[in-house]
Amino acid sequence: MSPSLLLGRLKAHRQADWDAYTHHDFVEQLGAGSLPRESFLHYLRQDYVLLIHFARAWALAVVKSDRVSEMRVASSTVHSLIDEEMKLHIATCAEEGISEDELEATPESTANLAYTRFVTDTGLRGDLLDLLVALSPCVFGYYEIGTRLAEKSGGPPPEHPYHDWINTYTGEEYAEVCATAGSMLDDVAHRTIGTDFEASPRWPSLMRIFSTASKLEAGFWQMGLDGS
Amino acid sequence: MSPSLLLGRLKAHRQADWDAYTHHDFVEQLGAGSLPRESFLHYLRQDYVLLIHFARAWALAVVKSDRVSEMRVASSTVHSLIDEEMKLHIATCAEEGISEDELEATPESTANLAYTRFVTDTGLRGDLLDLLVALSPCVFGYYEIGTRLAEKSGGPPPEHPYHDWINTYTGEEYAEVCATAGSMLDDVAHRTIGTDFEASPRWPSLMRIFSTASKLEAGFWQMGLDGS
Amino acid sequence: MSPSLLLGRLKAHRQADWDAYTHHDFVEQLGAGSLPRESFLHYLRQDYVLLIHFARAWALAVVKSDRVSEMRVASSTVHSLIDEEMKLHIATCAEEGISEDELEATPESTANLAYTRFVTDTGLRGDLLDLLVALSPCVFGYYEIGTRLAEKSGGPPPEHPYHDWINTYTGEEYAEVCATAGSMLDDVAHRTIGTDFEASPRWPSLMRIFSTASKLEAGFWQMGLDGS
Amino acid sequence: MSPSLLLGRLKAHRQADWDAYTHHDFVEQLGAGSLPRESFLHYLRQDYVLLIHFARAWALAVVKSDRVSEMRVASSTVHSLIDEEMKLHIATCAEEGISEDELEATPESTANLAYTRFVTDTGLRGDLLDLLVALSPCVFGYYEIGTRLAEKSGGPPPEHPYHDWINTYTGEEYAEVCATAGSMLDDVAHRTIGTDFEASPRWPSLMRIFSTASKLEAGFWQMGLDGS
Repeated sequence: MSPSLLLGRLKAHRQADWDAYTHHDFVEQLGAGSLPRESFLHYLRQDYVLLIHFARAWALAVVKSDRVSEMRVASSTVHSLIDEEMKLHIATCAEEGISEDELEATPESTANLAYTRFVTDTGLRGDLLDLLVALSPCVFGYYEIGTRLAEKSGGPPPEHPYHDWINTYTGEEYAEVCATAGSMLDDVAHRTIGTDFEASPRWPSLMRIFSTASKLEAGFWQMGLDGS
Repeated sequence: MSPSLLLGRLKAHRQADWDAYTHHDFVEQLGAGSLPRESFLHYLRQDYVLLIHFARAWALAVVKSDRVSEMRVASSTVHSLIDEEMKLHIATCAEEGISEDELEATPESTANLAYTRFVTDTGLRGDLLDLLVALSPCVFGYYEIGTRLAEKSGGPPPEHPYHDWINTYTGEEYAEVCATAGSMLDDVAHRTIGTDFEASPRWPSLMRIFSTASKLEAGFWQMGLDGS
Repeated sequence: MSPSLLLGRLKAHRQADWDAYTHHDFVEQLGAGSLPRESFLHYLRQDYVLLIHFARAWALAVVKSDRVSEMRVASSTVHSLIDEEMKLHIATCAEEGISEDELEATPESTANLAYTRFVTDTGLRGDLLDLLVALSPCVFGYYEIGTRLAEKSGGPPPEHPYHDWINTYTGEEYAEVCATAGSMLDDVAHRTIGTDFEASPRWPSLMRIFSTASKLEAGFWQMGLDGS
Repeated sequence: MSPSLLLGRLKAHRQADWDAYTHHDFVEQLGAGSLPRESFLHYLRQDYVLLIHFARAWALAVVKSDRVSEMRVASSTVHSLIDEEMKLHIATCAEEGISEDELEATPESTANLAYTRFVTDTGLRGDLLDLLVALSPCVFGYYEIGTRLAEKSGGPPPEHPYHDWINTYTGEEYAEVCATAGSMLDDVAHRTIGTDFEASPRWPSLMRIFSTASKLEAGFWQMGLDGS
């Protein structure tokens, strides 16, 4: 069951982009536990910096909201990214002797710059709906990936090398973030383009944003594999 | 004949706000030639600063455009505001011994701050359509006022004290700015909310932006009269 | 003791603006308990809408931060405004039969538009320091006012008609918001213009922002008295 | 002779990044006339889209300016990019049967997204100086490259396959754009961080922006070679 009607339609129209992202080789290797530690750590450091910019992007969603209820959702997502999701990165990297300051100073890869700045620029250029669509592959894709990998690996067992990662994106807390974000995405969509999404003249442009963000997510996984 | 279909519909739904702005006492006195010189000069100095922020807002429209053709229209409007429209202000104030530097340093009245910053913030918050709607009362209203006053005063005659002002907003150059801006407004509207404007879920919000900007224009005239 | 070195210098250079704001007649009447209920309620409704835009402005500070630690401070201020400070408004208005939806739909006065949009536009135009300086009269001024009125009214006693308002801005929670915001303001200032504030070429421009925001605060009180 | 004092200092501190960009293999092959046509056309199509976003970024500089004189410079740069510099791209691509609409619809490479959106986001995040520093490698680097290649190739002769490209970036018109932009950059720098640039606490951050933009320029050339 999709956490959002709009997400469901975007995925249906951009299935190939979505699958290339959510079933990327990096993801499959992570699920199988065969992903080289080096690749994972490279990804994790870049992802820490990505989360900083995604938190900035969700804060931009607060700036662009025109309802207090939506400001609350977007603001609590900023909090969730900065205070909850980053904990995994900090803890995992600490085990490897990488400090929080070092994490924050990670030189950004091109794949990282491209993805995060595309999202914030989409927010500057368009309205709240454009921004939320640019943010949606990350929020909802991670949940879909986490859930699928958890089912596949049967849990995952405590000895699975990426046990903590999988659990972060399947836990109740993250599920709730997705449910709330999905419901907000639909509210904003209904208020902006109505209920027949494909009939809106904005549909092609929204698909383009969704497609670009999905491809940039795939590029982010590839960067993990390549160490680029 | 309205230079824009969307403008036509917005005016029809917000006629009282539009009339209160375009038939404000300041305007009527200016047309009759009875407006005290002091009121006119106070208005003109504030309007010089307003044009700076409207040029910033049209530049923000360039930032928010996603077609080169529209970037060209918005960019040429920036140029028209900075290099053409301001000339009247500079020339008129020079006659009164007020320099260009003094003009630029005019302390902004509350009515001025409220209007211009509402427009730029609308651009930060919403999309290109929201921003263009916030800009439309100024662009199109001045043309409507100028044309009406010119007809009423029969020209106006060279000895009319506000001859130059009326001519600035009835000249061919300004008419062309309006025609181009009107056509861009409709293109953006069609691409964003389709052709049945009132059927869009965004209609109430667009009317609200239009109504607020019209009221702030009226407040700007009032500031001229009050010297506030 | 000032919660911020920069605030201390800005106040010293713009003492008249600061005093006109923090000792405004509205404030004195509120402290004496003689402020008409109608004035207070008019102010409170406008202030509810103001808080929405100040929360947007603090969210913009998150967007503009380049340190995770500062994103945390700005983000927790958004939360504090939306979830804590607004409670007073909601509760007080509920007693008068004004619902939360009605509060959110309050038509904004010109004084309100001018102030809040000046702040968000300052954030769009300048850097984090410009934005924080524009936000500082509100954050720190309210604490200074609250503390002074509490001392003067000796508590204030439970029967004081504006007991809750005074307590909101003197409580430990608000004191902590100020201390944290003050320390962030100084950190950002040191990193941006160094420690000798007045020697920075940006000093005149920072004073101008501070002065404008202080005057707009005074205009906001005046709006409460005038019912405008 | 450098068109800007600030540029001179940034280059001196980030010489390796600057050289890797201005002497990139793509540039050397272009100068020698040995660059494969396919690489050049791939670059040119991406560069057309890049110019769109650089025009948006210069428009953002108008939004962030606080002097009319600087708004004029930034606004005329928008015009120069959209109306002059793009002409080369349109004409060259037309010869190869690529229309203007096709050009505008070029799918952006990751290197392109990373560079252009980094620039616009820098403008959203920081102040005018940050944005101008992010824009400077493009403006000034192209002039330096064009001039060096022109000298090396002795003209270049009319039969040089990249004759038009080299001439675009050595012509008087482009030289003037650089001189004006350089003088504005220094004015803004002096007004923001004073005359002893390296003594400013912002110096490390400005170098970081300059360095990132230079590296992204090098990545853009590499994309041309790789066809990625």
